[in-house]
Amino acid sequence: METYIVSDVGGTHIRVAAFDVSTLALVAQKKILTQGHGLLPTERLVNAIANIGKEHEIKAIAIALPGFLDPEKGMIIEAPNIPDWINLPLRDIIKDYFKVPVFIGNDANLAALGEWKFGAGIGHKNILYLTISTGIGSGVIIDNHLLQGERGLAAEFGHLTILPDGPICGCGKPGHIEALSSGTAIGNYVREQIALGRNSSLNALSNPSGSDIYDAAINGDDLAIESFSRAGKYLGLALANFLHMLNPSIVIFGGGVSQAGELLFKPMRDSLEDAIISKEYLQNLIITTAKLGDDVGLKGALALLLSKYQSPEIFTQQILFN
Amino acid sequence: METYIVSDVGGTHIRVAAFDVSTLALVAQKKILTQGHGLLPTERLVNAIANIGKEHEIKAIAIALPGFLDPEKGMIIEAPNIPDWINLPLRDIIKDYFKVPVFIGNDANLAALGEWKFGAGIGHKNILYLTISTGIGSGVIIDNHLLQGERGLAAEFGHLTILPDGPICGCGKPGHIEALSSGTAIGNYVREQIALGRNSSLNALSNPSGSDIYDAAINGDDLAIESFSRAGKYLGLALANFLHMLNPSIVIFGGGVSQAGELLFKPMRDSLEDAIISKEYLQNLIITTAKLGDDVGLKGALALLLSKYQSPEIFTQQILFN
Repeated sequence: METYIVSDVGGTHIRVAAFDVSTLALVAQKKILTQGHGLLPTERLVNAIANIGKEHEIKAIAIALPGFLDPEKGMIIEAPNIPDWINLPLRDIIKDYFKVPVFIGNDANLAALGEWKFGAGIGHKNILYLTISTGIGSGVIIDNHLLQGERGLAAEFGHLTILPDGPICGCGKPGHIEALSSGTAIGNYVREQIALGRNSSLNALSNPSGSDIYDAAINGDDLAIESFSRAGKYLGLALANFLHMLNPSIVIFGGGVSQAGELLFKPMRDSLEDAIISKEYLQNLIITTAKLGDDVGLKGALALLLSKYQSPEIFTQQILFN
Repeated sequence: METYIVSDVGGTHIRVAAFDVSTLALVAQKKILTQGHGLLPTERLVNAIANIGKEHEIKAIAIALPGFLDPEKGMIIEAPNIPDWINLPLRDIIKDYFKVPVFIGNDANLAALGEWKFGAGIGHKNILYLTISTGIGSGVIIDNHLLQGERGLAAEFGHLTILPDGPICGCGKPGHIEALSSGTAIGNYVREQIALGRNSSLNALSNPSGSDIYDAAINGDDLAIESFSRAGKYLGLALANFLHMLNPSIVIFGGGVSQAGELLFKPMRDSLEDAIISKEYLQNLIITTAKLGDDVGLKGALALLLSKYQSPEIFTQQILFN
């Protein structure tokens, strides 16, 4: 059987799956740690692909990767959570090993492509996908095409400046939306306020986690509620900016923090409505959560392969997974 | 002779031109006032087209328009400088009159298309065009396609929030880049500082114009220089955001304020370099000024018609005007 091999590489886990080229049925999948056993992440990735692909012919490979990439050149410029991966020609390394075509893509970009092809974005041509977890990632579909920019560096919406004098982002620059509305930002705000002597049920915990803060908010803790509503307020302001620039028909939220639901989304909508320059942007706009869950990277990588091997007409006809 | 008729409608002037369909040579052009002689702007536009088109067969008409449009539906939603044009089905009005296909587009969007096809953007696939005059307009080319969004409302980059508590924009919302870096913003800043008792050669003038401020800056007036460098600083911050989102290969500046040159662009580049999250965005990036001058609206409208009537292969082959 001829298969597409896809992989989703994160700082902690490498996931690999094989799909039947003709039916797109899932043939096999596997999840391993990214680091360990004295092997480099690249070696572990090669082994995982070899292992899952060994019983079938491989037609092509696609890999979803964190950080900055140049998809055209197949280069990882920098992968924040995998220290060794700087200026690494990963595509050619994998290609030289398996002797089949290999494609790489940024994980949030491919997640957007996956949600468009197989998930919450089916039937939409203009999509903004935002994943809110430790950081804020994003991917954009414009007129049924993935926004990549000249060198694949586009769609870094987490690094929109919202408060030029605001808190420092993971990237080192001040006031980005990631530094105001990510899970990390929510946790930092709670800790800061407690350090300032703020009263909260979270006082009892030395280092409250995201789910601690969520539970406290559900139980009516003012600080916990405020930490989500502050994040939501800035997210709504950022979203207004994104709508002015992209005018999508749907905004899809992925990532763990999105599961906080109305704690985050009610203040977000309020602030979005305040900041939008015309109600026309909100007419028929759908704001929803992602559908593909943990599979989003793998299915996004599969969507990338289909974009290469299906005719444009068939590719833009949305299909459903079985 | 079969002709394309194009028009560029502004708050003050309506320009109309006819181009030979086979050679793209300019056949005739005319410029009239948008309002006057007891006629509505729509009537004046129809007359101008009829006048210039009367000696030739018209193949199609394209019109560049200010404000919010729905290009798919051919509707003007709101045109800030032409008070009567609210929810106006202008495309169908013109089409019913002339019985030929009619297309409309936002003037800044079409300017981007014009610069891509005929001007500073020739050969580039990913372009950000910003026009800085009274306000800040923008147009974006992604992978040789005009960014329009679901309803044609995309690419409103002038309404990027830079300072949430900053000065009020023409649209009524606070802190947009248009309220910080446009010609209006530069003038407002000078007037504010003078009202606060700031010493400046501009004190002598009751209402200094843009060119007064430019002249004062060239002559070493501190306040005038500062008004441009403040605008440039915020523009650089906005530009970093745009690059993170779009990763273009070229940024083209049009509009009168861009003619201030290094007074504006030096501080802009400094602040851009400060704010960019990776030098990769600046590698091989071209930042330049527009080439088409006052013709940009007409040539943008012509480019829109070519996108409709030329095959995609021929259309994306860049051609030069004679």
